[in-house]
Amino acid sequence: MINPEYIGFFAATLTTSAFLPQAFKIWNSKKADGLSLTMYLVMAVGTLSWLAYGLLIESPSVIVANSISVSIIVFIITFIIRSKK
Amino acid sequence: MINPEYIGFFAATLTTSAFLPQAFKIWNSKKADGLSLTMYLVMAVGTLSWLAYGLLIESPSVIVANSISVSIIVFIITFIIRSKK
Repeated sequence: MINPEYIGFFAATLTTSAFLPQAFKIWNSKKADGLSLTMYLVMAVGTLSWLAYGLLIESPSVIVANSISVSIIVFIITFIIRSKK
Repeated sequence: MINPEYIGFFAATLTTSAFLPQAFKIWNSKKADGLSLTMYLVMAVGTLSWLAYGLLIESPSVIVANSISVSIIVFIITFIIRSKK
């Protein structure tokens, strides 16, 4: 039987990297106009909750995936708030 | 000790609903211009992999969250492909 963690880390790589183009775009343009702060705040709380879930069920791939996603989402939120000023 | 599944389902509700505004926007406008097909295809494969992971570790919240996400993502992809024609 294949180790589920291999599939988990494969999944983590894909769903985490889906956020990267948006982060790069913001980094290059130094702007985050048009992005929904509400959506990213919901994603941040959701991803932090998945992180808590991963810690509780002791799932390495859920923990790693959501730690990275939270970092990228917080980065995006910082730029959205700066853009609004 | 709190049941981890409560936290998992709370997380699932948030991260799944983050996709909904985009799906509603497409449904109302019947257009999906400006959306990246590549990004949504990556998300689809990633979410299907999380679903497989959830089945392997027998996690109810991971299974339910990713089943719903896959459905919404496939709906968005269908509209992106139609828009390109």
